[in-house]
Amino acid sequence: MADLVDLTAAQDLEALRAHLDETGTLDIAEELARVPPEEMAVPFRLLAKDRALQVFEALDPAHQQQLLDALREDRVRELVAEMDPDDRARLLDEMPAKVAKRLLGGLSREERQLTSILLGYPAESAGRIMSPQFVNLRAAMTTADALAKIRRAGTDAETVYTLPVTDDARRLVGVVSLRDLVTAPPTRRVEELMVGDVVSVHVGADQEEAARLIQDADLLALPVVDQEERLVGVITVDDAMEVLEREVTEDVSRAGGVEPLDRPYLTAGPFDLARKRAVWLLFLGVAAVLTVNVLTAFEETLEAVATLAVFIPLLIDTGGNSGAQASTVVIRAMSIGEVRFRDLPRVLGRELLVGVMLGLMLGLVAFPLVSWVFGLEFGIIIAATLVAIVIWATLAGAALPMLAKRFGLDPAVLSAPIITTLVDATGLLIYLGIAVVVLSEELAAASAVMTVLTG
Amino acid sequence: MADLVDLTAAQDLEALRAHLDETGTLDIAEELARVPPEEMAVPFRLLAKDRALQVFEALDPAHQQQLLDALREDRVRELVAEMDPDDRARLLDEMPAKVAKRLLGGLSREERQLTSILLGYPAESAGRIMSPQFVNLRAAMTTADALAKIRRAGTDAETVYTLPVTDDARRLVGVVSLRDLVTAPPTRRVEELMVGDVVSVHVGADQEEAARLIQDADLLALPVVDQEERLVGVITVDDAMEVLEREVTEDVSRAGGVEPLDRPYLTAGPFDLARKRAVWLLFLGVAAVLTVNVLTAFEETLEAVATLAVFIPLLIDTGGNSGAQASTVVIRAMSIGEVRFRDLPRVLGRELLVGVMLGLMLGLVAFPLVSWVFGLEFGIIIAATLVAIVIWATLAGAALPMLAKRFGLDPAVLSAPIITTLVDATGLLIYLGIAVVVLSEELAAASAVMTVLTG
Repeated sequence: MADLVDLTAAQDLEALRAHLDETGTLDIAEELARVPPEEMAVPFRLLAKDRALQVFEALDPAHQQQLLDALREDRVRELVAEMDPDDRARLLDEMPAKVAKRLLGGLSREERQLTSILLGYPAESAGRIMSPQFVNLRAAMTTADALAKIRRAGTDAETVYTLPVTDDARRLVGVVSLRDLVTAPPTRRVEELMVGDVVSVHVGADQEEAARLIQDADLLALPVVDQEERLVGVITVDDAMEVLEREVTEDVSRAGGVEPLDRPYLTAGPFDLARKRAVWLLFLGVAAVLTVNVLTAFEETLEAVATLAVFIPLLIDTGGNSGAQASTVVIRAMSIGEVRFRDLPRVLGRELLVGVMLGLMLGLVAFPLVSWVFGLEFGIIIAATLVAIVIWATLAGAALPMLAKRFGLDPAVLSAPIITTLVDATGLLIYLGIAVVVLSEELAAASAVMTVLTG
Repeated sequence: MADLVDLTAAQDLEALRAHLDETGTLDIAEELARVPPEEMAVPFRLLAKDRALQVFEALDPAHQQQLLDALREDRVRELVAEMDPDDRARLLDEMPAKVAKRLLGGLSREERQLTSILLGYPAESAGRIMSPQFVNLRAAMTTADALAKIRRAGTDAETVYTLPVTDDARRLVGVVSLRDLVTAPPTRRVEELMVGDVVSVHVGADQEEAARLIQDADLLALPVVDQEERLVGVITVDDAMEVLEREVTEDVSRAGGVEPLDRPYLTAGPFDLARKRAVWLLFLGVAAVLTVNVLTAFEETLEAVATLAVFIPLLIDTGGNSGAQASTVVIRAMSIGEVRFRDLPRVLGRELLVGVMLGLMLGLVAFPLVSWVFGLEFGIIIAATLVAIVIWATLAGAALPMLAKRFGLDPAVLSAPIITTLVDATGLLIYLGIAVVVLSEELAAASAVMTVLTG
């Protein structure tokens, strides 16, 4: 079936209109994101005004920006004016400063102020994603008063389901739910219904902290306060979900040795994509020079017994994989708060057992096979190396991210590729160390032959 | 400062009580999860009844189960009876069938029915996480009637903020928000306020699909319908967040070559932890035998020029890293819906350019360094191999997860370790192929020497 991409490319306005009529807002936004940037304005202009705004709001900032670039100035101003202050702040933040300034200038004084306040908070802070539009109640109000205030002031507010209660100095003293207001008798006072032990967040706190609070406490909205505990905004659950998705993308990217992209994959140019990987790839490449050093030190051994080289990839892959497994599990447990630094001894105790079990398993599988094809001595070398490498890599993979966090680094930075590269060099030392011990007689004989030949 | 773990271990009931009094519910739950299972009952028993229920609900099912194991039968029955039907279904689902059956038997008939319905839907389906307790309205009601019904029936419902509207046959015809009901005049009819173009989900649909819908459409609750489009439940945003967190844990685990754990890290035994990694580690180890085959085929070459072996780890690490980078980015873009199979040509076009840029960068860095230490021929071999391997690995890393999805597999299964192992063998072929061409004269000479020596 033809979708927005094909219909736009075909410039078939009749069919486009019919398609837009029978497609939901969300699906339109999703298809629109796939239309090449320079053509995005074509289907968008065919949408009715309120529907167009809904579609626009469902796009992420990178696609919103592409679309705005393709629209006429007055339409742009209109769309930006209709956005919620927090979404608008997010969009303007990603635009070139000049464009953002011009768009801000086109807003009404009130809307401009609301957005400027948010843009004044530090990047990644709770203040950036909160809405400054909320309905706050007083403890002494009756539920009837409260509902009347919600009716009056509730249309512009980001949410009316979780209502902050403040005192004369605008300090947060409690929170009441609309559900309790609606189900209580009209003469009941807000203070009887409100929860006084409020979960709130400071305006300068990290966005991820705020989002995790919303998730852990199953909140619909989280009050945001300034240094004097005065209420300045609320963060709603939909913004929390967006933040968490962005954080996950960051963690996942780092775990794969890539700097996070900040924008949808298909809107990023190849040079951008390469730049996000270049630093890590180069760094990991330089770190891998360690392996060259180790092997150069053992070059004579490798020359004497070339069969040893044959197992290098298998052994370092296995070490890398078991290290990556341990670090993946530990990093995830840390990022959802299950494991903290003080759990290090417990974690290492478990991972030691895990490493021993996995190492023995692989050693027992490898021993008969390798002995059969390459002889008993190689069977012993490879099995012993597998046991040692897997235990070592598992412990290193579990410990390094925890230590990183202890020293204030993002544990996700100690990604699988880094662990792999770190355990490769040490793994090779273990391997060739074991080989030299087991093969000492052969190596002595070989070295005698070599001396005769080259001497 | 002493926390629940230390205070419980010290059996200092006085200090425990004081600590519980000044700690928030969420923090208590978090600390309780760290107390050894056999001691969990001690601090829990000190909590007031309603607080104890809140703490219990804030625990995840694995910790809930540990706690129940430590409590007396009548207390267990009480706690389970107080839970919401959907949370209870989740908990019972993870318990041994016998225990679950006994606990179900201890419930009132109504509560038992509500939970049994949910447990009857397939695992991972929307039906399992929905709440069967909702307030449904009729289109002909006035807002006053609707609010009266909410007041009557709203206390047990999971949410009253998004209210489904049904017809005589219980078929879903729209959705209205409590905000609109509260702010509209009392004589307004529900049908004038409701949104008719409802986003809903089928009871058998995948939980992740339902959760993504809630996230993408910024919903507080999503109606769930059966095959006849009759309303059977609602899924709320807090359940959606939990599902998404679980899905992320699954994806992240698979990306690290680990089967997902299903339970918090510290509650899983070492044998469990090892089992989740054993299959992948073994599978990857067997796949790495390919690299042994490739190197065995080139054993003579390696014997003649042992320096070639020195670069093997560096080259396969770099190939593995660039493959992992590409697959990480593409898998994430697919899992949040940015990229679909039909975008394959665009993705490959970009990744080809990215691979060329990154390969050339590494080649240009390596060429002078390797030439200087190991001679011009090695400089050429290593630089050319880096360019070729990085391009090949980048393309494979991007294409394989997309192809996997096309054939109905979870793209996350084509994890970084698998991509690494797959490109290792082919990377070695590329490397030694290039080496043989560049070194053909040396190899011929060496082979002549060998023939003399061994013949």
